[in-house]
Amino acid sequence: MPLRFYLRTAALALFAIILLPLAAPAQNSQLKTASQQELDVIKVLLAQEAAWNRGDLEGFIQGYKSSPDTLFITRQVFRGVDGLIEEYRDNYPNRAAMGTLAYSELEVHPLDEKFAVVIGKYHLERNKKEGGNADGIFSLVFEKTDKGWKIIVDHTT
Amino acid sequence: MPLRFYLRTAALALFAIILLPLAAPAQNSQLKTASQQELDVIKVLLAQEAAWNRGDLEGFIQGYKSSPDTLFITRQVFRGVDGLIEEYRDNYPNRAAMGTLAYSELEVHPLDEKFAVVIGKYHLERNKKEGGNADGIFSLVFEKTDKGWKIIVDHTT
Repeated sequence: MPLRFYLRTAALALFAIILLPLAAPAQNSQLKTASQQELDVIKVLLAQEAAWNRGDLEGFIQGYKSSPDTLFITRQVFRGVDGLIEEYRDNYPNRAAMGTLAYSELEVHPLDEKFAVVIGKYHLERNKKEGGNADGIFSLVFEKTDKGWKIIVDHTT
Repeated sequence: MPLRFYLRTAALALFAIILLPLAAPAQNSQLKTASQQELDVIKVLLAQEAAWNRGDLEGFIQGYKSSPDTLFITRQVFRGVDGLIEEYRDNYPNRAAMGTLAYSELEVHPLDEKFAVVIGKYHLERNKKEGGNADGIFSLVFEKTDKGWKIIVDHTT
């Protein structure tokens, strides 16, 4: 069910984003750029989701900028991707603990050509003995880096 | 006590920021610009704190960009400054309910000349019958607008 929900959400998101340029061919180039940006950013999140759901934490982490300045905020602040990987490994030691992740209600808010804010929700479907299901909300700041769009600030609650 | 804490924090923040250009007079202009940006952004937060602590919700709200796109994220997402004012009025109907607000551990992370991310913590000192003290963490996205630096995304938990 969460996987199906994710696919529907993803399909709707891609449809909405791709439709925009088609429906308004005479729009200015700035709006086109924003749409491509939205699509690129959403793709990163879908790749993260897919990586998580095949138990690939390393792949999931690829969504973050590989930098000591990358911030991950929950009840406290974690700094740098290396620390983030360790934090994830501690909290999700095996495939069962990871469960099935589904993002929903994703919204991309472009700031300019190099930065964007994304807000959304997540649902984690997981056995009770592994901690059970979890739900939350997140806001992300993305930077367009040499290696594509990457998360530089993640505030998840 | 929280007020004294706030003053100490503010003094340290301003000291650190102002000291930077003094200590390194030969630094390049980019670093200077970043420091001025940090100072300008911190000033907005100190003004918010001062407004809150004199019971001035309208003044506090001045820290946000007056736009329907401004986002305030807690356990749910609120959109637009008008809705935000109503939300604050509902949650803080009088001076006693507002208590005394103190920001701490403020960090400004400039993105570029027009945008910055700020993370920090807040402490609300308040009578038990008004809900008691509260603590939390926040991440903010600031935009440099015609009216100065304003918060466009507030994620507070």
